[in-house]
Amino acid sequence: MKVAILGYGNIGRAAEKAIKAAPDMELAGVFHHNDCLNCIDADVVLVCTPTREVQKFATVLAARCICTVDSFDIHGQIWNLRDSLDAVCRSNKCVSVISAGWDPGSDSMIRAILMALAPKGITYTNFGPGRSMGHTVAAKSIPGVKNALSMTIPLGTGIHRRMVYIELADGADFKTVEAAILADDYFAHDETHVVAVESVDALNNVAHGVNLVRSGVSGETHNQRFEFNMEINNPALTGQVMVSCARAAMKMKDRGEYGAKTMIEIAPVDLLAGTKESLVKALV
Amino acid sequence: MKVAILGYGNIGRAAEKAIKAAPDMELAGVFHHNDCLNCIDADVVLVCTPTREVQKFATVLAARCICTVDSFDIHGQIWNLRDSLDAVCRSNKCVSVISAGWDPGSDSMIRAILMALAPKGITYTNFGPGRSMGHTVAAKSIPGVKNALSMTIPLGTGIHRRMVYIELADGADFKTVEAAILADDYFAHDETHVVAVESVDALNNVAHGVNLVRSGVSGETHNQRFEFNMEINNPALTGQVMVSCARAAMKMKDRGEYGAKTMIEIAPVDLLAGTKESLVKALV
Repeated sequence: MKVAILGYGNIGRAAEKAIKAAPDMELAGVFHHNDCLNCIDADVVLVCTPTREVQKFATVLAARCICTVDSFDIHGQIWNLRDSLDAVCRSNKCVSVISAGWDPGSDSMIRAILMALAPKGITYTNFGPGRSMGHTVAAKSIPGVKNALSMTIPLGTGIHRRMVYIELADGADFKTVEAAILADDYFAHDETHVVAVESVDALNNVAHGVNLVRSGVSGETHNQRFEFNMEINNPALTGQVMVSCARAAMKMKDRGEYGAKTMIEIAPVDLLAGTKESLVKALV
Repeated sequence: MKVAILGYGNIGRAAEKAIKAAPDMELAGVFHHNDCLNCIDADVVLVCTPTREVQKFATVLAARCICTVDSFDIHGQIWNLRDSLDAVCRSNKCVSVISAGWDPGSDSMIRAILMALAPKGITYTNFGPGRSMGHTVAAKSIPGVKNALSMTIPLGTGIHRRMVYIELADGADFKTVEAAILADDYFAHDETHVVAVESVDALNNVAHGVNLVRSGVSGETHNQRFEFNMEINNPALTGQVMVSCARAAMKMKDRGEYGAKTMIEIAPVDLLAGTKESLVKALV
C-alpha cells in the first residue's frame, strides 16, 4: 500500500514515522500544500494540512480516485464535510476517512461503543492536561502577548480549566493583557488563569490525554460504569490514527464500500495489519 | 425490527429487557431450546442457550435466512465457529454476529482499537472482581462441595487470584476438599484461596468488571498509555450487547454484507439506533 503525506507539520512528520513502522505500507512521498496534486501517485494520501484546507485538497484527490485520510476537527462542520466528500468518493469509487484523530476520531469510536453498551446515560469527555491549539492561537492574538500556551485542565463532568502561560511583549502591562484574555470569547466561559512566564518555549510539551466517563443503563439496569483514559504524545497518536485509517480506507475501497466515513463507521479490524483470521484469534 | 430470544436463562431475561427498551425493536417471542425452531418468525434471533449449543441452533436458523446473535465464549473455538457459520450465512444471505458479549465482545473492540492507536506494545486484560462461571462449575464438581462460587480477582498484568467460597456437603472434610480444589487444573495455575461459608447463596452478586491496559508505541513514540475500565452488572451488559448487535446484524444484512462477524468486524455506528447523521453529529 503506497501512502503519501500532504502537509509536513507536526502531524505529517508523525504520520511519516507511523508509515515507516507499518509492515504493509511504503511512503509514496511527502508533498507540500502548494505542490502539484497531480504529481501524487499513491493509494492513499494523508491530508495533514491545516484543518480549514482539508476539504479543498481531499475533494481534488477524491476526484482523481485517490483515497484520503484527514483529521478535520471543527466539530460543527464534520457532517457537512462528510456529506460533500461522500458524493465525490462515490462517483470516483474511492474512500475518504475524515476526522481521523483521537478526538474527533478514536474517542468517537469509544463514545459510540459505550452508547451501545448502555444506551441511556451521560458520557463526559474530559480533555487534558494538554495544550489546546485553538486557545493557544486565541491567546497569541491578544495585543501585548509575545508568545502563549493555553493548557486544558480537566475538572470532570466535561468542565475544563484554562491555564494560559504568556510572555509579555516589551512594555505590555500584565493586568491589561490578563483582562483582555479573560474577556475573550475563547476564555470567558471557563475558569481561566493567566500566568506570566519568562519563556513559553521552556514549557513546550506535546503530552495530552483524555478521561472519558459514562454511567448508563443496560436494558433496565442502571449504574453501569465505564471509563476510558489515555496519556499520550498528541501528534504521535494523531499520525498513527491517520495511518491506521489509511489501511481501513483501502480495505473498504477493495470491498466496494465507497464514500466518506467517520471513524465510528469503520470496523476496528479494518484499522489493523494482518489477516482477519490472525486478528480474530489474537483479539476476540 | 422483530427480535426473538432463544433460551431464557440470565442472559435471555436481560436481553428481553434490552429489547423492550430499544426504540426500534419489538419482541418476537421467547423460545426454549426444545421448542420448534421452525415456529420462530423474527428478523433476528438472540441465541441465549448454553455456549456449547450455540453452533447447532445458529446454523439451523441461518439456514432459514434468519440473522442470529450469540455470546459464544470458548476462546479457542471462536474462529472455527465463525468459519462454519460464515458459509451458511453467505449461502442464505443473512448475518450471524458471534461472541457478542463483553469479553469476547466489546472488550475485543477496545483491544482492536488500542492496537490501531499503538501497534506495538502489550495489552493486559484484567477481569473482575466478579464470578467466573467456568471456575464456579469446576469447584461445584469437586466431591464434598455442596455449593460453590469462584470469584476472579484482578492482580494486574493479566494475573488473577481465585477466591473460592464453598458450602461443604454433610460429613465432608474441609482440608480434603480444599486440596482437591487446589489440585484441579482450573485452579492449579493461579493463586487460589478456598473459604468455607454457611451460605454461598448469601454471597450472590452478578457484578463484574474489567481493567484493560495497554502501553504501546505510536509510530516511533513509546509510552503511549491507554486504560479501559468497567464496573457492571454482568447479564444486563451481555443482554444489552446482544441486542445492540442484533441491530448491527440487520444493518449489515440490508447492505448485503452477509456472513458471520465477530464484534471487531462491526462498525460502532451500526450498533446504535438513530440516523447516521444524528449519530455522527452527536458522537464524532
